[in-house]
Amino acid sequence: MQLLKQTIESIGELNSEVMKQTRYRVDHLVKPPGSLGRMEDLAVHLAGITNNPFPEADQKVIIVMSADHGVYAEGVAPNDQIITAIQTPNFVRGVTGVCAFAKQARADVVVVDVGVAVDLDAPGVINRKIRYGTDNMAKGPAMSRDEAIQALEIGIEITSEQIRQGKNLIGTGEMGISNTTASAAILSVLGAFDPSEVVGIGAGLSIDRLSHKADVIRRAIACNRPNPKDGIDVLAKVGGFEIGGMAGTMLAAAAHRVPVVVDGFISTAAALIAVALAPKVKNFLIPSHSSAEKGAAKATALLGLKSMFDMDLRLGEGSGAALAFNFVEAATYMVREMVTLEEAGITL
Amino acid sequence: MQLLKQTIESIGELNSEVMKQTRYRVDHLVKPPGSLGRMEDLAVHLAGITNNPFPEADQKVIIVMSADHGVYAEGVAPNDQIITAIQTPNFVRGVTGVCAFAKQARADVVVVDVGVAVDLDAPGVINRKIRYGTDNMAKGPAMSRDEAIQALEIGIEITSEQIRQGKNLIGTGEMGISNTTASAAILSVLGAFDPSEVVGIGAGLSIDRLSHKADVIRRAIACNRPNPKDGIDVLAKVGGFEIGGMAGTMLAAAAHRVPVVVDGFISTAAALIAVALAPKVKNFLIPSHSSAEKGAAKATALLGLKSMFDMDLRLGEGSGAALAFNFVEAATYMVREMVTLEEAGITL
Repeated sequence: MQLLKQTIESIGELNSEVMKQTRYRVDHLVKPPGSLGRMEDLAVHLAGITNNPFPEADQKVIIVMSADHGVYAEGVAPNDQIITAIQTPNFVRGVTGVCAFAKQARADVVVVDVGVAVDLDAPGVINRKIRYGTDNMAKGPAMSRDEAIQALEIGIEITSEQIRQGKNLIGTGEMGISNTTASAAILSVLGAFDPSEVVGIGAGLSIDRLSHKADVIRRAIACNRPNPKDGIDVLAKVGGFEIGGMAGTMLAAAAHRVPVVVDGFISTAAALIAVALAPKVKNFLIPSHSSAEKGAAKATALLGLKSMFDMDLRLGEGSGAALAFNFVEAATYMVREMVTLEEAGITL
Repeated sequence: MQLLKQTIESIGELNSEVMKQTRYRVDHLVKPPGSLGRMEDLAVHLAGITNNPFPEADQKVIIVMSADHGVYAEGVAPNDQIITAIQTPNFVRGVTGVCAFAKQARADVVVVDVGVAVDLDAPGVINRKIRYGTDNMAKGPAMSRDEAIQALEIGIEITSEQIRQGKNLIGTGEMGISNTTASAAILSVLGAFDPSEVVGIGAGLSIDRLSHKADVIRRAIACNRPNPKDGIDVLAKVGGFEIGGMAGTMLAAAAHRVPVVVDGFISTAAALIAVALAPKVKNFLIPSHSSAEKGAAKATALLGLKSMFDMDLRLGEGSGAALAFNFVEAATYMVREMVTLEEAGITL
């Protein structure tokens, strides 16, 4: 609890003075003012996050949190739960979707077992297992309050270590069969949506099972009564270990003033938890894509972010965040590589 | 004319057999089927273009065509015409917007003077000047039919040379004060739009000058009567040298089965010319962004492309194409780096 408290307390505001410096430079680069649109705003945002008028984003990492969900027992997922355990080592082997996109974007991928349902014999997977999956939220809290704090603090520790190693751009990723159910539950509670408005097919649930998925979430909320004003309570009752870890990643990135790119639906649910705990986290979040998962647009709107691209992705893992890294890095190149009109000898 | 004719004749169809192979692999990669959305379609498209089930897109170049426009005399641009001449060498110096994004995407930038209004003393700029800018299309044809063919053939030659040097991904870019006017004129003719529906602010024309810009285009169309069924006629009468060069780039890329990324409004106008000359060119075009320039959405729709991202860019130069290179390369990494479910030991 001490680490979580300290981390939250050290999250600050964007540096408006540095943002002004970067805005001035961007406005005077050798192009019509405003003609690089949101890339300009992104550069200014990065300056405000990093306290650096010439921000850098060349040391990149996707932190993948992996865990299982007790609510799987309710038949909310199309695939076998063992997929979580099979896939988790594949992030180390470099053969999953996020790995492919991270390699293109020259980003590392770090994988953490925060609660996979079986023991993994997988060198390279960071073992911070809280326990073998959450409990079934349809019948009681997914985890205890202490476990929720533990998940958040694992995310903080792993992320702080990455930042100590020099990372200056972080993305959130996850693996966990049934985690769109937990994410939709979080969104229902924090956004006051009926579950039917925010449940989607996840990894490929058949459409005729969606009302069942919504019913399960409705039951979970009814039996647990999560308090929307208490992010830890929401995480504990209807969340997941990996979602807590991802929220911890966002808190740590914000505390260290490192930009953190939010991937798709599950990352956005984690961001909603992080913002519920510390509203200033929002200053440090960078959007990525419009996920094709049904609840994603509502979650992104609730968070107040505007996505950068729409490629109908719904894989998760951090795959959309890895693609978005290129935009973030390109914005820093714009500030650093372009010259000003004056430097180019142009008088308008 | 011989080169143009040969190039057009050698443009083929997408290879549906290879597309099937790549689609099969993509469908069986270690992810829920379809969960990488348009990245999957992009990979299949690249396979069909390149005849390679494992397409590559790691040798990238933006070809920037630079030229001036006689219609500048009508007061359709907010900046001095000399900007074209000042900026053109800046692409070689690496300090413009497209250069910054190309550097991030590990792409070369090649710059061609096809008709800048003054002589350039600029080492590195490829000098293929047709003449010192087009004529004023509001008073007669912008160029002769022979000059239009020359512009197209310069684009074909420059691009074929890049492909001979090993480039496997090409993007179109341009520099030319007043070229949104020529582009809007092309779009008006080929899409049967009234100019007022497709004129935008370009580099920053004041809103109250937009109706004047539309009037100039209306006069140009009235006095020249370009034939919408004849792409060369449209290019000659209301186009530009750089637009012809870019259309040539697209024809050559298509003929050599190399994917070509279309940047913003001016690139899209050039693509409309290329498709008017050779409808099969469309098979080889890759979209990039939704430009903020007013006519861009109509031009993209007329071309039948769907943009990948929207960052409110309206710089041109090929800047949006350079950003899009990352998506194209990432799609090839997806096919090459991810394993199949079978290879990962997963049975569904």
